[in-house]
Amino acid sequence: MLDKVDLSKSIEKDEYEDLIDEFTIRLGELQRKAWKLGIPVIVVFEGWHASGMAEIINRFLMPLNPMGFELHTTGKPCAQELRKPLIWRFWTKIPARGEIAIFDRSWYRRALLEHFIHDIPEKEITNCLKGITYFEKQLADDGYLIFKFFLHISKEVQQKRFEYINGKGIPLFISEEEEQDYIKEYDRLMPLTEKMLERTDTSHAPWNITEANDLNFATVRIMATFIQALENRIAKVEEKHKESENERDHTYINKSLKPSILETVDLSRKLSGHEYKKMKEEYQERLWSLQYRLFMQKRPLVLVFEGWDASGKGGGIKRLVQVMNPRLYRVIPIGVPSDVELSHHYMWRFYNEIPEAGHMAIFDRSWYGRVLVERVENLCTDREWKRAYREINEFEEILSNYGTIVLKFWIHIDPEEQLQRFKKREKIPHKRWKITEDDWKNREKWDLYEEAANEMLQKTSTTYAPWTIVEGNNKKYARVKVLRTVVEKLEQELE
Amino acid sequence: MLDKVDLSKSIEKDEYEDLIDEFTIRLGELQRKAWKLGIPVIVVFEGWHASGMAEIINRFLMPLNPMGFELHTTGKPCAQELRKPLIWRFWTKIPARGEIAIFDRSWYRRALLEHFIHDIPEKEITNCLKGITYFEKQLADDGYLIFKFFLHISKEVQQKRFEYINGKGIPLFISEEEEQDYIKEYDRLMPLTEKMLERTDTSHAPWNITEANDLNFATVRIMATFIQALENRIAKVEEKHKESENERDHTYINKSLKPSILETVDLSRKLSGHEYKKMKEEYQERLWSLQYRLFMQKRPLVLVFEGWDASGKGGGIKRLVQVMNPRLYRVIPIGVPSDVELSHHYMWRFYNEIPEAGHMAIFDRSWYGRVLVERVENLCTDREWKRAYREINEFEEILSNYGTIVLKFWIHIDPEEQLQRFKKREKIPHKRWKITEDDWKNREKWDLYEEAANEMLQKTSTTYAPWTIVEGNNKKYARVKVLRTVVEKLEQELE
Repeated sequence: MLDKVDLSKSIEKDEYEDLIDEFTIRLGELQRKAWKLGIPVIVVFEGWHASGMAEIINRFLMPLNPMGFELHTTGKPCAQELRKPLIWRFWTKIPARGEIAIFDRSWYRRALLEHFIHDIPEKEITNCLKGITYFEKQLADDGYLIFKFFLHISKEVQQKRFEYINGKGIPLFISEEEEQDYIKEYDRLMPLTEKMLERTDTSHAPWNITEANDLNFATVRIMATFIQALENRIAKVEEKHKESENERDHTYINKSLKPSILETVDLSRKLSGHEYKKMKEEYQERLWSLQYRLFMQKRPLVLVFEGWDASGKGGGIKRLVQVMNPRLYRVIPIGVPSDVELSHHYMWRFYNEIPEAGHMAIFDRSWYGRVLVERVENLCTDREWKRAYREINEFEEILSNYGTIVLKFWIHIDPEEQLQRFKKREKIPHKRWKITEDDWKNREKWDLYEEAANEMLQKTSTTYAPWTIVEGNNKKYARVKVLRTVVEKLEQELE
Repeated sequence: MLDKVDLSKSIEKDEYEDLIDEFTIRLGELQRKAWKLGIPVIVVFEGWHASGMAEIINRFLMPLNPMGFELHTTGKPCAQELRKPLIWRFWTKIPARGEIAIFDRSWYRRALLEHFIHDIPEKEITNCLKGITYFEKQLADDGYLIFKFFLHISKEVQQKRFEYINGKGIPLFISEEEEQDYIKEYDRLMPLTEKMLERTDTSHAPWNITEANDLNFATVRIMATFIQALENRIAKVEEKHKESENERDHTYINKSLKPSILETVDLSRKLSGHEYKKMKEEYQERLWSLQYRLFMQKRPLVLVFEGWDASGKGGGIKRLVQVMNPRLYRVIPIGVPSDVELSHHYMWRFYNEIPEAGHMAIFDRSWYGRVLVERVENLCTDREWKRAYREINEFEEILSNYGTIVLKFWIHIDPEEQLQRFKKREKIPHKRWKITEDDWKNREKWDLYEEAANEMLQKTSTTYAPWTIVEGNNKKYARVKVLRTVVEKLEQELE
C-alpha cells in the first residue's frame, strides 16, 4: 500500500491558514452535533517515527472542545497491562457516546514495533490481529465511527527529522529507550508495516495513508477526511432518527431449537447431608492448593454463574471462595448498568473486570444478560442480542487465547422449586430483602427465559469456554458439582 | 501501645461458631442499612506479616454482599504510582457513599515496611504522615467511617507461621521478593511500628490493636468492633435525619474582607496587536523548551484557571498549549459533577486528575468551585465550603511536597466588559453555543461571586500555590500575562 503514495505533496502557507480557519469552525460545530446525537468517535494515529505525529495531533486537537475528547498516548505495555490480554488496555479506553477518543499510537503498536523487536511468535501476532479485528468490528457494529491514519514519510525525511530532534534535545516519546535503535530501521520495518496495513484494512475501519513529508499538507488532509466522514455519519444518523423513532422488530421467535437442552436436565439428583459435608471439604481443600498453583503459573480464571432467580448462584459462589485467599479472587455481581456503562459499548464494563494473570474473577450474572434479560425484556434491539452471540464468543476466545481458563455454570431449577424458595425467603426476616417485585414478574416469563437460555447454551458453548449445566433443585448437589467441576478443570489445566 | 496487649487471648470453637452465625446476620443487615443511609465505610488492615491477615479478611468478607464492597490489596507502589504523590493511589480508591472499601495493607505501608527497607529520609516520612492525617481527617469530616485494625502477634507465633507457610509453599503476598528478608525482622520493626501507631492514632480514625495469636479470637473481636461502631453511626445518622431534613445555615456573610482584593485590580492594562504578537511568540518559544526540561526533571505542573464567565479562560489556555507537545499536557475542563462523582468525597474527582511527574494538568475551573459556585448557589452547606479552604490548602500542599509546581490564575474582568462579550457571543453563529441561560443568571449574582472570590483569594494564596490575578479586560494583555507568569515560574523552578 505504501509504495503507491506520492510523498511530494505539499500546500502553500496561505492556503493552509485559510483552510485551518475554515476547518476550525466546522470541526467545532461537528463535535457539538456528534455530541448531541451520541455518536462515539475513535481516531487512531499510527505512522513512522518522526513523522510529526505529536505536532499533527496537537493541531487536530486545537479546534476541539476539551470537554468532549480524550487523548491516549500508547507506550510499551506496563507490567499490569501484560497481565491481561493485549486488547484490554484499549477496550477500557473506548469513548462514551458523543465523545472522541484519540489514540497517539494504538493497538497496532504490538503488531509493528513490538513484533519487530521482540520476535513475537507468528501465532501470537495472529491472535493479536484477530483481537484487533473483533475489537474494531464490534465497535463499528455498535455505531462507533473509526478513523485510522497512518502518517507516511520517506526514509530521507525521517533521517533529517531524527537529526533535528537530536539536535534540539527533544525526548523520543512512545518508544522506550531499548526500542530507540529499532525505530530507525526504516527498510526492515517496511514489510511488517505493509503486512499489518493490508491485514487490518477493513470497510468499517479503513486505513487512511497520509503523506506527511509536509506537515501542513498532512494536517489539512486529516482534518478534511475527518470532517467529511463525520458529516456523512451525522447526516445518516439524523435521517435514521427521522425515519423511525423506534425501529425495533420484536417479532423473532425461534421455534427450531426444541427439544430444549434444559428439558433433559435430571433435577432429581441430590446429596445427603453427610455426603455433602465430606465432599465439600475434600474439594475445598484441593481448591485451596490449586489457587496457589494458578497464581504461580500465572493463569487467569474466569467463572460465570447464570441461572434462574433463587437458583443458588450466590450460595454456590460462597462455597467456592470460603476457603480461598481474598488476594486471589474477586466476586463481581452484575446488576443493572449505570448511566456511564450504558453510554459505552455493551461489553465495555466486562472488559473492565477481567482478571489479571494468576487471579480469578467470579461473575454473579454476566455478559450473558444481553441474550437473557435484555432479550426477554426488550432492553436492546433484536439485532443487538442476535449479534451478541458472536461478540460473546469472540470475547471468550480472546480470554482463552491469552491463557485464561473460562468455565460457565447454568444453575437450573424448575418453577415449582423456585416458588418454594421465594416463599421461604419471604418468611425469614434476614432473607426478605433478597426477594423483590421483579423476581415475581420474571417468573411469569419463564417460557421466554427458558427459550433464551436454551439458545444461549447452544450458541455459546465452545471448546474454550464450555457451559456446565448444574442440576440445582438440591442445593447440596449443586454446590458440590460446581466445586468438583472447577477443581477437576484446574487439575487438568495446571501443571 | 503494643507492649500492653495481652496476646494470650483465645476463644473456644463452639463459642466462635455461634458468634459468627449471629454476626453474619447482623453484618448483612447493617450493610444494607448503611447502604440506604449512604454511609461510606473504610476498613484498614495492617499488622505483622503472617498475622493471618488474608484469612481474617476472608472471614470478614463472607457475611457481606459483594455488590457493596471492594477489597484493595496494597503492594509495593508500581511505576505509575511513584509518578504521583503517595496518597493519590488511595484517594482514587475511596468508596462511594453507602459502600465499603477494605484495604489489605494501606497507606501505612510506606511509613512501615518501605521506611524500614529503603531508609527514606525523615522529612519524606513526615510529609507522608501529614498526607495521611489530611486524608483521614478530610474523609471523616465528610461522614466517612474509618476503621483501622492492627493485627498483633508475638515473635514466636510469627516464626511458627512463617515455617508453616514455607512448608506449604504458599507465596508471600504483598511483600515483594526483595522485601522478604525484612518482614521477618520483628524486633527491628517494632519501634517503627510503635511510632507509626502513636503518630496516627486520632479520635476520628483510631487504631484498634487486635490480638491475633488466635485467629478466631481476632475475627470475633474485629467483627464485634465493626458492628458496634457501625450501629452507633447508623443510629446517629438516623437521628440526624429525623431532627431536621435540612439543617443548612446560609446566614453567613463576611463583611470584614472589604476593601476587596479585586477592587484594586487595574483593568485598563492592555497590549497593542503588534506587542501581543511579538511577546506571545517569544514566550511560546520559551515554553516549548521548558516543557521538555519539566519532563526531563520529572516535575509535575498544575495550572488552575478560574474567573468570570467569558473572562477568557479558554482563550488563555489555548495560547499556552498551542505550541506544546500533546503528550505532555492535558486540559481538564471541570463541569457539573456526575452522579458517581457526587457520591464520593468532593476532592475525589480532582485527585483522579493530578498529573504524573513531568506532565502538566491544566484545569479550566477546578476544586475552587466548592468556594465559588457551590457556595453562592447553595449547592453545599456552609460548613462544607468553610471547611474547604483548609481542604484545598492541604491538597495543594500535598502536591507541592511531591514537587509539583502549582500556579493559579484568576482572570478578572468587570461587569460591563462581560456584558459586551455576552452580546458579541450571541451575534456570532459559531460562538452562540457558548452562552447559556445560566451565564445570564450568574451575572445577576455578581456581588455574591465577587465576595466569594475575594475570600478565596485571601484564604488560599499560599507560598506553595500562589494566585496570580490577571487583568482580563484586554484579552491580549491577559494572554501574555498568563504565558509570562508560567514561563518565568518554570525558569525559576527548573534547573
